[in-house]
Amino acid sequence: MSMDITFLGSGSAYPSPHRGASALVLRTEGENWLFDCGEGTQTQFMRSQLKSSKINKVFISHLHGDHVFGLPGLLCTISLNLNPQPDQPASCVDIYGPRGLRLFLRVALTLSSSQLLFPYAVHELETSDDQCPEEGRLSAALTTSGDALHPQERPGRTIQLDPDTDCYNLIDDKQFVVKAFRLYHRVSSFGFSVDEKERPGRLNTDQLKALGLRPGPLYGRLKNGESVTLENGRVLTAGEVLEAPLKGRKVCVFGDCSAPLGEGFKRACQGADVLVHEATLEDGQRDKAVEHGHSTPGMAAGVALACGARTLVLHHFSQRYKPEALRRDGEDDVTELRCQAEHVLQGSGTQVVLAEDFLRLPIALKKNL
Amino acid sequence: MSMDITFLGSGSAYPSPHRGASALVLRTEGENWLFDCGEGTQTQFMRSQLKSSKINKVFISHLHGDHVFGLPGLLCTISLNLNPQPDQPASCVDIYGPRGLRLFLRVALTLSSSQLLFPYAVHELETSDDQCPEEGRLSAALTTSGDALHPQERPGRTIQLDPDTDCYNLIDDKQFVVKAFRLYHRVSSFGFSVDEKERPGRLNTDQLKALGLRPGPLYGRLKNGESVTLENGRVLTAGEVLEAPLKGRKVCVFGDCSAPLGEGFKRACQGADVLVHEATLEDGQRDKAVEHGHSTPGMAAGVALACGARTLVLHHFSQRYKPEALRRDGEDDVTELRCQAEHVLQGSGTQVVLAEDFLRLPIALKKNL
Ligand SMILES: [Zn+2]
Ligand SMILES: [Zn+2]
Ligand SMILES: [Zn+2]
Ligand SMILES: [Zn+2]
Repeated sequence: MSMDITFLGSGSAYPSPHRGASALVLRTEGENWLFDCGEGTQTQFMRSQLKSSKINKVFISHLHGDHVFGLPGLLCTISLNLNPQPDQPASCVDIYGPRGLRLFLRVALTLSSSQLLFPYAVHELETSDDQCPEEGRLSAALTTSGDALHPQERPGRTIQLDPDTDCYNLIDDKQFVVKAFRLYHRVSSFGFSVDEKERPGRLNTDQLKALGLRPGPLYGRLKNGESVTLENGRVLTAGEVLEAPLKGRKVCVFGDCSAPLGEGFKRACQGADVLVHEATLEDGQRDKAVEHGHSTPGMAAGVALACGARTLVLHHFSQRYKPEALRRDGEDDVTELRCQAEHVLQGSGTQVVLAEDFLRLPIALKKNL
Repeated sequence: MSMDITFLGSGSAYPSPHRGASALVLRTEGENWLFDCGEGTQTQFMRSQLKSSKINKVFISHLHGDHVFGLPGLLCTISLNLNPQPDQPASCVDIYGPRGLRLFLRVALTLSSSQLLFPYAVHELETSDDQCPEEGRLSAALTTSGDALHPQERPGRTIQLDPDTDCYNLIDDKQFVVKAFRLYHRVSSFGFSVDEKERPGRLNTDQLKALGLRPGPLYGRLKNGESVTLENGRVLTAGEVLEAPLKGRKVCVFGDCSAPLGEGFKRACQGADVLVHEATLEDGQRDKAVEHGHSTPGMAAGVALACGARTLVLHHFSQRYKPEALRRDGEDDVTELRCQAEHVLQGSGTQVVLAEDFLRLPIALKKNL
């Protein structure tokens, strides 16, 4: 039930020895989801406590190189380090991202003659013209090629915007609902919201023991919500011994943007436990940030406020903001960026965290409903 | 007149924190040539004393990811850090490599909406079917797309094998002759030879001063091979005061291979001052190396012997061979690889060097002819 985020790259534009290019991993119970994959992400994995071979889903916010150029190499290296089980075929890695991602990956893997020991599928989000200026749009001709898939590629979905919610519905399974929403940037960019579903409460084992019930199959039936008949004939309902259900957690990861687009982000991110947002430049350079399709801490804080997020994590810092520990006198101070966000969030109860490479942020279980 | 090689990545298969993926820079008098560009090369530049913005030519030995996945990002970052001179258009970066490289770069730069502040051209070497097993060949359909170039792309040449020399003629200018030759690997792979042209010898300034000639325009004319008439009427020919011409240096960089293919390498590399060759695995794993299209130190030494090379530099080590300084007890010892090559080269006078990331290898001027 533990959940955490590990930042593998907190820098913008390109990877540097001080800050990797964008990449973060959300982990929970066997799920290892990678959000963005700038060049060098595979090496950042090696420097971290995480294993790239565990990645089972990938989400790419947009196709700028600092968010995607590491993906072909990461998949190749995961494959190299896999120990294939002959009796258990490798499961498919699902990759979500903007239209064009499928061709990018297919061409890179095909021309490099890369064979993978697992299948993959790219599920493309359809972009809309208002997500970026005209020069950032990719014509359909540029993002499609013939029907020939890479040998390990499985057909992926094309996901349209749901006009009712202004969101894209990516995943809805037993544990999670994952949506995407539109952002405005120099190229079409997306944010992602991960909603953990409510889970049944814990069994009150003290109470069960007092009733003379020892751990065993009956516990499992109660946990599943069934009633059981005790030896003395008493019918024990699950509700009597189950604690209240646990509310799911919500994590939202925004791609590069100078603003959200439409109302999707508010629906998808309302009450987020953690909202990860870029803050490329400081508030004093807001005009320059917006011109380049980026945000400042104050702008990111505004988004967090609109969503009622509990924690705002800033990342994607210009490489001029060195990590605090490496900063020398006279150099730009990244902690100023936290202050600028906190200023906007004063009184809201929203906490601000600055990402650094390899920062691990645990996301606590929510209190019972 | 100084010339050196700097290794930016000495590891095989993928970049690790201990060894970057393949990349080396040959520098001489304003020329900065990059050979191969694995993922993370731009970050290795930042860790080195070199400036990636000075790169004016790129040579890619083959399209495996550990040799080419860093190229799109490197070009983007060079562009980001350029200070364009309005009155001086940026010069074209010439990129040489196997058929398929042009499409790889075009798709990566186009789908990432990357605009460069300089033009580039990809000159493709035609591959031959016997350079690799059938599964490594790229059909013409896979390596071509429409005629639409990337906005900063200039048309590149397609370079055919010269059947007389079994070489490809890449460059023949005032200073250098550059050829490529064929190698056998899992995919079509090439080596490159750089021949510095002979240069006029130095002026014997002691002798000139004894003749009463002070530094000035006359020196330049003599240096250019002209005769000059002294004040006393004596005609002084250049030959009297010029030292013998300086023989050019020769540097050869092999791509991944289990063997050279044909006779091209012998012609191109005969008498190399420095021959850079891969040695992925130790001699005891020769069968495994060959199966994967790679070489051992003994095999590399055989190539160096056949070419009469003065210095053999081994690189592209399996990531299991840590740099000497980081090796712990019981781990594979990279210095064994040097011994294995030296064993084959005993008595030949050929020196063996192990590359490490950031090793700078000066290449001394040759003695007069
Ligand atoms: Zn970015
Ligand atoms: Zn971006
Ligand atoms: Zn290689
Ligand atoms: Zn290779």
